Amino acid sequence: MKTRYLLTIALVGALGLTASLARAADPLPSWNEGTAKKSITTFVEKVTKENSPDFVPIPERIATFDNDGTLWSEQPMYVQAFFVFDQIKKMAPQHPEWKEKEPFASVLKGDLKTALAGGEKALVGMLAATHSGMTTEEFEKSVTDWLATAKHPKTGKPFTEMVYQPMLELLAYLRANGFKTFIVSGGGIEFMRPWTERVYGIPPEQVVGTSGGLKYELRDGNPVLVKLPELVLNDDKEGKPIGIQRHIGRRPIAAFGNSDGDFQMLEWTTSGKGARLGMIIHHTDAEREVAYDRKSHIGKLDRGLDEAAAKGWSVVSMKDDWKTIFPPAKPTN
Amino acid sequence: MKTRYLLTIALVGALGLTASLARAADPLPSWNEGTAKKSITTFVEKVTKENSPDFVPIPERIATFDNDGTLWSEQPMYVQAFFVFDQIKKMAPQHPEWKEKEPFASVLKGDLKTALAGGEKALVGMLAATHSGMTTEEFEKSVTDWLATAKHPKTGKPFTEMVYQPMLELLAYLRANGFKTFIVSGGGIEFMRPWTERVYGIPPEQVVGTSGGLKYELRDGNPVLVKLPELVLNDDKEGKPIGIQRHIGRRPIAAFGNSDGDFQMLEWTTSGKGARLGMIIHHTDAEREVAYDRKSHIGKLDRGLDEAAAKGWSVVSMKDDWKTIFPPAKPTN
Repeated sequence: MKTRYLLTIALVGALGLTASLARAADPLPSWNEGTAKKSITTFVEKVTKENSPDFVPIPERIATFDNDGTLWSEQPMYVQAFFVFDQIKKMAPQHPEWKEKEPFASVLKGDLKTALAGGEKALVGMLAATHSGMTTEEFEKSVTDWLATAKHPKTGKPFTEMVYQPMLELLAYLRANGFKTFIVSGGGIEFMRPWTERVYGIPPEQVVGTSGGLKYELRDGNPVLVKLPELVLNDDKEGKPIGIQRHIGRRPIAAFGNSDGDFQMLEWTTSGKGARLGMIIHHTDAEREVAYDRKSHIGKLDRGLDEAAAKGWSVVSMKDDWKTIFPPAKPTN
Repeated sequence: MKTRYLLTIALVGALGLTASLARAADPLPSWNEGTAKKSITTFVEKVTKENSPDFVPIPERIATFDNDGTLWSEQPMYVQAFFVFDQIKKMAPQHPEWKEKEPFASVLKGDLKTALAGGEKALVGMLAATHSGMTTEEFEKSVTDWLATAKHPKTGKPFTEMVYQPMLELLAYLRANGFKTFIVSGGGIEFMRPWTERVYGIPPEQVVGTSGGLKYELRDGNPVLVKLPELVLNDDKEGKPIGIQRHIGRRPIAAFGNSDGDFQMLEWTTSGKGARLGMIIHHTDAEREVAYDRKSHIGKLDRGLDEAAAKGWSVVSMKDDWKTIFPPAKPTN
């Protein structure tokens, strides 16, 4: 009996070990087996295999990722919009005139619907007020401070935990295969850089985003860069290939997006020669996240769904292709 | 006799080995021993030593290099200016009107002095004519094709061999110590990217330079990026810290330049906290290269010389600090 007992323990132990080895060997454990996962691994094997006709040298293995809705959640509102509203509240004591001035007055009353009713003009005014006039270092601190305490309104989690676990695995898998991973996002470049290295392993110099003007000046003999209320790059739609060329200077071989704002980035990427991977993250999971596409104001995906098949782009269904959406909660100690 | 002979061979061999080991151990063999070389090695040792108070983690080891006059020769004229003049000649058959139109008419007659007499307006016109209207891929090809045959007017060498051997060693030394090396140049970003990886080991995404507008459009269903005659970044003087922030997103800890156009880059770099290295390459060698500084139209260095000591910047005398200027000629097979 004793022998059999020990044997059983040994066998169970061995089985457990085998299972964890199998898990360790799968670089994308949060992805269900299926065409989406297969399209990734097949592409990576092709471009990394030395004698393959599709082999791509390491320096040319450039992969670009949209951020909002592709790497982290963009519902019910862009994270940066929450930041803007909170900054307006924080800055209000220095701006008594905002009590009478739209869209600020509505934001201060908590009436975001009225605040946003002013359309693009209202948005630009709020962005200018909260994203310019300060130095780059002051702005960086305001983002870092805000992220340390701000919580997602539905889940109560820090926004930096509202990132997609399968995409974190994908980033790591590509990097392990010699890819350089970049963010190419409509979000503000200076809003992303303070945290993308810690959260995604993407350093500031590999972040491309909507950018404003800067002014170099001396304050008490110390140089500073002051953020100006002028647009240098609107990194959305046609702006994405432009941002890629300006910041990266070569065409990616893989691109990942989730909305029609990413259409031109995927088009530019996948129309290059050789093996290419274009992938759309389709928000299909009403239960574990939010289901939205053609009719959504945020992250509208319409043309991309229509043309994906013809363009050879892979469409990921979050509901079917992803085992988990978000990473396990971090210990709060 | 035979024994002594063998002993002599063994001793000479051992001495030779020791000498080559010493050479191998010196990462900057083209730099004479002196304060300039010492300022580099002392800085690198400080920031890379784990328990040093000046230790800098690898991701923050950012070093920026000016190009013209710092990494390659800028005399008697910027290399890009030679390119502009040659492009005008090459494009002339498609522009019969240039025969009557300045500054093009003078360029075509070989009278560069008159062509340049039109000042900035003439320059902008020539840059627009030769650097916009084509796609980024067409422009890249024109640069690559030109560099393959163009020769420096004095040395007869390809321009990509008019690079400074001590700086190539410095780039390699910094990278071997975990630095990421960037170019931050007043030169055109698209003019540099086609060759910086091959010549300096600096990939396109680590090149910051003067940048023009781009337009994304479809031609016969294929996307292209068309270069526009509009300035997006003038990457000189105050433009250098701005370019650094826009493209890199963090402050370098080391910066290398040669002219007053690099002043603000060095100022921005060395006014950050912790150990910093600012270095000016001073063109003092009339015999092996060209001696110029305060009065030069190209690469004027005046304020930098006045303020270097007070700012703690190291000044390299090419004549005294560099054993060799250019790399050995490449075999032409």
